Amino acid sequence: MSFTVYLSGEIHTDWREEIRRGAEAAGLDVAFTAPVTDHDASDAAGDHLGPQSEGFWRDHKSSKVNAIRTKTLIEQSDLVVVRFGDKYKQWNAAFDAGYCAALGKPYVTLHGDDIVHPLKEVDAAAMAWASTPAEVVEILRYVLRG
Amino acid sequence: MSFTVYLSGEIHTDWREEIRRGAEAAGLDVAFTAPVTDHDASDAAGDHLGPQSEGFWRDHKSSKVNAIRTKTLIEQSDLVVVRFGDKYKQWNAAFDAGYCAALGKPYVTLHGDDIVHPLKEVDAAAMAWASTPAEVVEILRYVLRG
Amino acid sequence: MSFTVYLSGEIHTDWREEIRRGAEAAGLDVAFTAPVTDHDASDAAGDHLGPQSEGFWRDHKSSKVNAIRTKTLIEQSDLVVVRFGDKYKQWNAAFDAGYCAALGKPYVTLHGDDIVHPLKEVDAAAMAWASTPAEVVEILRYVLRG
Amino acid sequence: MSFTVYLSGEIHTDWREEIRRGAEAAGLDVAFTAPVTDHDASDAAGDHLGPQSEGFWRDHKSSKVNAIRTKTLIEQSDLVVVRFGDKYKQWNAAFDAGYCAALGKPYVTLHGDDIVHPLKEVDAAAMAWASTPAEVVEILRYVLRG
Amino acid sequence: MSFTVYLSGEIHTDWREEIRRGAEAAGLDVAFTAPVTDHDASDAAGDHLGPQSEGFWRDHKSSKVNAIRTKTLIEQSDLVVVRFGDKYKQWNAAFDAGYCAALGKPYVTLHGDDIVHPLKEVDAAAMAWASTPAEVVEILRYVLRG
Amino acid sequence: MSFTVYLSGEIHTDWREEIRRGAEAAGLDVAFTAPVTDHDASDAAGDHLGPQSEGFWRDHKSSKVNAIRTKTLIEQSDLVVVRFGDKYKQWNAAFDAGYCAALGKPYVTLHGDDIVHPLKEVDAAAMAWASTPAEVVEILRYVLRG
Amino acid sequence: MSFTVYLSGEIHTDWREEIRRGAEAAGLDVAFTAPVTDHDASDAAGDHLGPQSEGFWRDHKSSKVNAIRTKTLIEQSDLVVVRFGDKYKQWNAAFDAGYCAALGKPYVTLHGDDIVHPLKEVDAAAMAWASTPAEVVEILRYVLRG
Amino acid sequence: MSFTVYLSGEIHTDWREEIRRGAEAAGLDVAFTAPVTDHDASDAAGDHLGPQSEGFWRDHKSSKVNAIRTKTLIEQSDLVVVRFGDKYKQWNAAFDAGYCAALGKPYVTLHGDDIVHPLKEVDAAAMAWASTPAEVVEILRYVLRG
Repeated sequence: MSFTVYLSGEIHTDWREEIRRGAEAAGLDVAFTAPVTDHDASDAAGDHLGPQSEGFWRDHKSSKVNAIRTKTLIEQSDLVVVRFGDKYKQWNAAFDAGYCAALGKPYVTLHGDDIVHPLKEVDAAAMAWASTPAEVVEILRYVLRG
Repeated sequence: MSFTVYLSGEIHTDWREEIRRGAEAAGLDVAFTAPVTDHDASDAAGDHLGPQSEGFWRDHKSSKVNAIRTKTLIEQSDLVVVRFGDKYKQWNAAFDAGYCAALGKPYVTLHGDDIVHPLKEVDAAAMAWASTPAEVVEILRYVLRG
Repeated sequence: MSFTVYLSGEIHTDWREEIRRGAEAAGLDVAFTAPVTDHDASDAAGDHLGPQSEGFWRDHKSSKVNAIRTKTLIEQSDLVVVRFGDKYKQWNAAFDAGYCAALGKPYVTLHGDDIVHPLKEVDAAAMAWASTPAEVVEILRYVLRG
Repeated sequence: MSFTVYLSGEIHTDWREEIRRGAEAAGLDVAFTAPVTDHDASDAAGDHLGPQSEGFWRDHKSSKVNAIRTKTLIEQSDLVVVRFGDKYKQWNAAFDAGYCAALGKPYVTLHGDDIVHPLKEVDAAAMAWASTPAEVVEILRYVLRG
Repeated sequence: MSFTVYLSGEIHTDWREEIRRGAEAAGLDVAFTAPVTDHDASDAAGDHLGPQSEGFWRDHKSSKVNAIRTKTLIEQSDLVVVRFGDKYKQWNAAFDAGYCAALGKPYVTLHGDDIVHPLKEVDAAAMAWASTPAEVVEILRYVLRG
Repeated sequence: MSFTVYLSGEIHTDWREEIRRGAEAAGLDVAFTAPVTDHDASDAAGDHLGPQSEGFWRDHKSSKVNAIRTKTLIEQSDLVVVRFGDKYKQWNAAFDAGYCAALGKPYVTLHGDDIVHPLKEVDAAAMAWASTPAEVVEILRYVLRG
Repeated sequence: MSFTVYLSGEIHTDWREEIRRGAEAAGLDVAFTAPVTDHDASDAAGDHLGPQSEGFWRDHKSSKVNAIRTKTLIEQSDLVVVRFGDKYKQWNAAFDAGYCAALGKPYVTLHGDDIVHPLKEVDAAAMAWASTPAEVVEILRYVLRG
Repeated sequence: MSFTVYLSGEIHTDWREEIRRGAEAAGLDVAFTAPVTDHDASDAAGDHLGPQSEGFWRDHKSSKVNAIRTKTLIEQSDLVVVRFGDKYKQWNAAFDAGYCAALGKPYVTLHGDDIVHPLKEVDAAAMAWASTPAEVVEILRYVLRG
């Protein structure tokens, strides 16, 4: 049994790498996908396209180019992991969770217990809440191996 | 032409009432719906159900009861307005936006320009960004009256 | 705000009537629907149709005629309540729950805590678990009134 | 012609193995999938995740982790076999059948004739009722070979 | 409980009127819809549109105009009755049945037992087979009244 | 039988009014809807929203506000009439036709025979091609009255 | 470019083989699928399953077993060819066409011009009408090669 | 990460080849698909099928045969590029864009800035507007590589 897992959300720590390493160490047949995680590249994703823009429209252009990737990868995945860190707004992560919920795409959240309350609606539609990358790996191990 | 508009998000200011008053003053045929906006009542929505719980599971129970209402109203609406204030995480608002995006349900955002950048993915899938309740009313007036 | 609620499952106690009375007493704008709850009539629903049958095929004919009603009412409802009593197999109730889950139709379960474990998959996809008709009424009151 | 078949339901006898052996003996190109069938492992599927829980919430956590697997495998399958044994409630099996029915996913039931009557709604939406694993194998042989 | 029932198929006998009268006599709250049943008018439905055509293209134009009506009415109905008489090909009736099957729209067939065998695929996906208009009325009475 | 008909496309002649008058004269129960047909108002639909923009982004803002109306009305209609005049690009009309085609929403085209060839893909997915508003009215009369 | 083509309908002539040979001769990358075309085997598809039945129920059992195959293959195909011969009712072929139409699955018909009129509704929703297997091959050649 | 990209629209310049070469030069794992771009072959796509036709019906036959290809390829693609040149009506390109929009299939437009205004509705639902094939290649490079 193989799985494709999309890793959504926070880009400032190496949680994606931890999950990848853990899955590899466990010998799991999982293909991981992710958005572009280079913050500056992501913000500039539409800069080569006209019209030259700043502020709202620059963000608009770049976000739509990024969405070509993220929307496709989310829809192709079997499971989405949505990570919330302890900084920043991370509204895109919550947006991805809502997107998954409406599609009926299963997702698990990954966050500390200090933000359980503000994430209650996001957690309510998730299949699981994990506190550490290791817990996510254990979920994957169980789901694929039993 | 009539419309049903769901007002999602921030519950600490009276923006919903401003939009309702504006639409009424303009004589628009709009029915507004909303989540339960009494914060304490919302947090306690599942307290009468077993098992008695605190923390994560209390939030879980209550969020799911709230979702019976919010999910139904979003799906029955013609348009969703998603409001982000200048405080709190408001991940549920971004979640609702993602939910709408996946359903193909049109939504507009309502927020100040100081949070344009962190909301770029949410705005990218929106039909419009409004800065004030009056702008939302003007959108409704145009859409219903031309 | 009004709601249509389908009452699925056990037909040997008057739980449907209790919920109806409770909703009426609370002044809620809820329309309740249900399968045919007369056991003998339900078993005989296809008897007037050919070919005359016994056993498996009699059940088959009657179940399909019943499904014309139940499938339509479930799809037209805003919420489904699925009741499990303390006797009988009640596989049709679990079937309805799975049907709702796949449609994305919100449902709540109604059952005693002695059958929590065998109902864990059914409860896992539900929006709430209620132990008494009064709890269901309270869910409806909250969802419709806040 | 190849098929993916999900084997849902009863976990106390070796019916899955019988079907697998029969399909192999017949040289059929069928990939079989299944839920985790180790009862204790399944009940404990969420135990490594917070918050530590007993009773309803322990079941809730584990059932959702299991659903990541079962929901995905059901949706990826071409056919589902739903097995009901002569003991236990097996509401999860009926739930899976209802889930398939709403998706338009074909399923066949596998059960003795002593439970034909309580399973009438489940059988009514099935493509076939088989009494033995050998009959299921024969269905597969016919469907794949003609 | 009210129902909308689309009456598809054979146009040479007054079976539609029999069902209408029976439902009225039984006091059922059913709205009946149907294709245009005037054969000549139906064949000429596109004659006022260019280009002037005969044979295949005349049929093509008219059938598409008719489909504006039939497709809409089928999708708006709660139940479809598909009638096969003892003459003519009536492929449009079987086409409507297949259309319903793919939509998950419940339908019942109405035909004599001399054509059970050639209609086996059509009957297999139906919720019931009725032999007379009176049997259809009895199905409606049961479904609406219990 | 009643119908809701969305009138898409060309805004420089009074074809919408001709169809409305014809349907009224024929006593048909049809509700007509349309985009905002005041060209200047339509181009300025987003001008009250930030950021102040010209060229591409002004068009972008306004088109999305217009889409709130057009998308909703198309999805609520039973039939769409797509009109192509003899001037201008009218890509929005062809866009609406493609949108209908993918939704399975029936549409008819209304255009002169001098543009049959460039409209061949649009006509191929339509239910009818009409050359005059009177022909559209006749289609409506037939579909509603037979 | 490769295609999967399901060949539905008449089973008394070798039209399937003609199309296969033609596609092979043209070097087209097409995988052909079909229902079980052995008439007796098809009628007996459910005979090994209980309860032992004759007439309507025998047909019912067998048709449902056949539908496991046909429904899956139709949904997996890129194109369906529906063949009507000059004998028999062939309602299953028209049923398949209607099924395709509702799914938005493209299909072409294959039949003589003597049955154009009774097939007008089936042809109206088809992408093409072919009179000979060679014409079907030419359609495939064009679609895959240009 | 690999992608399938459908190249819709204008057939008089070699923009498809430019994008193909650019993607190849960048070493991107992209499979490109397209409609038949030989204008005469496309117009004659149905000429081998009866009835022999000219004008509207010839166009009708050929467009439907072409649609077997285009509809399938659009639905199988991850991204669609819709190209508008400076000549001709190109309504089929706008039709494809509307088709994508309704499916939720991401598309980007490719056109000069002199036609920004008439394309505003088409651009409003696009994920990006590119002015040159090189810009499309850069979008692909970013989406696949980050």
